Amino acid sequence: MYKCNSRRLQESIEQFSQFGATPNGGVTRLSLSNEDLLVRDYFCKCCEELGMDIKVDDMANIYAILPGKKDVPPIVMGSHLDSVEKGGKFDGVLGVLTALEAIRTLKENEIELDIPLMIVNFTNEEGARFDPAMMSSGVIASKFEKDKMLQSVDKNGITFKEALQESGYEGEEDNRLTEALAYIELHIEQGPVLEAKQLEIGVVEGVLGMVCYEITITGESNHAGTTPMSMRKDPMIVASKMMMVLHEKLGEIDETLVYTFGRVNVSPNIHTVIPNQVMFTIDSRHQRPEVMQKVEEVLTGLPAEETGCRIQPVKLWGRDTVFFDAQICNEVEKSCQGFGYSAHRMFSGAGHDAQYIASIIPSAMIFVPSIQGKSHCEEEETPFEDCAKGADVLLETVLTLQTKFSMGETYTLN
Amino acid sequence: MYKCNSRRLQESIEQFSQFGATPNGGVTRLSLSNEDLLVRDYFCKCCEELGMDIKVDDMANIYAILPGKKDVPPIVMGSHLDSVEKGGKFDGVLGVLTALEAIRTLKENEIELDIPLMIVNFTNEEGARFDPAMMSSGVIASKFEKDKMLQSVDKNGITFKEALQESGYEGEEDNRLTEALAYIELHIEQGPVLEAKQLEIGVVEGVLGMVCYEITITGESNHAGTTPMSMRKDPMIVASKMMMVLHEKLGEIDETLVYTFGRVNVSPNIHTVIPNQVMFTIDSRHQRPEVMQKVEEVLTGLPAEETGCRIQPVKLWGRDTVFFDAQICNEVEKSCQGFGYSAHRMFSGAGHDAQYIASIIPSAMIFVPSIQGKSHCEEEETPFEDCAKGADVLLETVLTLQTKFSMGETYTLN
Repeated sequence: MYKCNSRRLQESIEQFSQFGATPNGGVTRLSLSNEDLLVRDYFCKCCEELGMDIKVDDMANIYAILPGKKDVPPIVMGSHLDSVEKGGKFDGVLGVLTALEAIRTLKENEIELDIPLMIVNFTNEEGARFDPAMMSSGVIASKFEKDKMLQSVDKNGITFKEALQESGYEGEEDNRLTEALAYIELHIEQGPVLEAKQLEIGVVEGVLGMVCYEITITGESNHAGTTPMSMRKDPMIVASKMMMVLHEKLGEIDETLVYTFGRVNVSPNIHTVIPNQVMFTIDSRHQRPEVMQKVEEVLTGLPAEETGCRIQPVKLWGRDTVFFDAQICNEVEKSCQGFGYSAHRMFSGAGHDAQYIASIIPSAMIFVPSIQGKSHCEEEETPFEDCAKGADVLLETVLTLQTKFSMGETYTLN
Repeated sequence: MYKCNSRRLQESIEQFSQFGATPNGGVTRLSLSNEDLLVRDYFCKCCEELGMDIKVDDMANIYAILPGKKDVPPIVMGSHLDSVEKGGKFDGVLGVLTALEAIRTLKENEIELDIPLMIVNFTNEEGARFDPAMMSSGVIASKFEKDKMLQSVDKNGITFKEALQESGYEGEEDNRLTEALAYIELHIEQGPVLEAKQLEIGVVEGVLGMVCYEITITGESNHAGTTPMSMRKDPMIVASKMMMVLHEKLGEIDETLVYTFGRVNVSPNIHTVIPNQVMFTIDSRHQRPEVMQKVEEVLTGLPAEETGCRIQPVKLWGRDTVFFDAQICNEVEKSCQGFGYSAHRMFSGAGHDAQYIASIIPSAMIFVPSIQGKSHCEEEETPFEDCAKGADVLLETVLTLQTKFSMGETYTLN
């Protein structure tokens, strides 16, 4: 078993975090921004120094390929180099840099593999500059239409198409990742579970299914001082009651179900006026379809009227649970055991490129702990030794898979 | 008993509603705006045609005086001519126009009184252009400092002082209303009670005491997908629970207590993020101090912490109940009985100039019904026949009081 170089990985994380560094230790590296283009250049240079070939596809996804002795599809590692505004220095980039460290470790040990290895950097994973998130993995996995994506506009009125054309990273559609033996994405957990349970590695079995509903409650505005309680149609009182009803009913369904009232808009939102309308969103996620089914039954089963107010639930969107490749997950877990690292089977509550890639390539993810579960903020933090353990597991899993694939074994899509 | 001219009152309401008329039948007549200045001019002209003398004080309050045979302080009627943005054509102006109709009825019947009568138009009652509301009655009743009021700024950066100087209505401080035998303000109810109970006149015994608290609940933001329910500090769930607790506890105190969660601000208000902070206001009103005392005990007695969130109630402001002059209220009620109009003893939940004037002059108010309780909107409506009944009661009350005062009786302040 080969261990990665923890010190070299740390230096690499620190170097990459200089691109778009913010004063408070974070990173702003919006997709195809100047900072993103500079970090892409630097990433390509690092890969070329390792003897890797660079290809770029029509969505500006970068593929760095380490040739194998056999001319077969590669094993792919990677994630994304873009960040949100004032994000952290681990989200995304860590999946790329642990892959780079894995290749560096192989080179250092003069190991030549039968199977080619590839590092991928997916364009605009965050969706922070151009909506939607996971845009480019989505395009190559046929989840999004490229033409629509090209029209996505940033806050300055620049289209994705324009940014792409000016980036110098617009490559050929033929270069798209369509065939590979496996895709493994290492990422920070972005949640508090691993740290709280004092576990080192998350073996990610899939991405939670989710639904998002908007519940609109319509009552009647009136003067806060002159309207007796019995004559009110107060949507705020009804909204808080409905949130408590949902909290109770959803809480009974399954203890691992999560749900969030993230956005609440009150109209007209004046302290001396009874509101006429309250809208709140509820986002709920779980891995089991039958649990999500029950959630939707609760949401659509709210009363149509309460205390004179109309209650209208509208489904904004939903996604089914994505299940990762069980064999790759098993290999990830075995790699952990080999190093003596504690592993925890879990689902990702957040979205990742792997959830789209999983539909075209057998995929899995590796999580490393996030301190206090923080992400998408400058305080985002994962101890460097935890990053290195993740790199160890990534490399070991790739080596095990390459041995298997080299002997002719293949994994099929779910 | 003299009845007012219902048709003439209607025409008068319609004429005055042309000043600042909105396309949907409402009025925008912000204080000291061009529309307000034009309606003031027209009001003065109407009064002068009735042989009344006009005086203006340093806050641009207008006093139209009908001299009496005796040189004694007047009986005062009136209200305000300004409106909110897209307000209705009854709020405020009706108190001035019913007073004008009362004087016209006296003139028509060639009645000369011993006691002078006065109609007052208070400047900036709404506070819609310059904060605070009831500014000028507040200044003459020493509730506000004039110097501070002069610095109040509208949304275009114009100070009240500048608007005053340019209005042509800046008069002498000596002209302020400081001495009068009684003040009677007729106003629309701005609530649904009279209409719902099918009653014609509200005998207003005072203005409800109130408190306004801001309750801030601070938790911890985290990803909606990755944070297990048991590890959350979710201030939105706590806020809705606290609203339900308050709804239950306040609901038990007194059936005529009112309370409103009018403003709710959630941060960061993103559907995929557990909020870190929720702030909601609660406005509560009742006439009895001991009830308001219990309300404050409930508000300050909320737990300091709940499910990991900090709960901080802050009192934004409060006011004690203002009790109007009981003898004037009795006379208003007797006048109703004389006409056979149904009368209802009630408190005002909204603020009015009378609540400040009551501290310097024995005061009371007369309410006429508001259709569906609507006010501060273009749909504000009171049937003209109800307005006329109010004018009848106003005139009759003034006549009864003038007889009493003429014989040397006086009312003293509470």
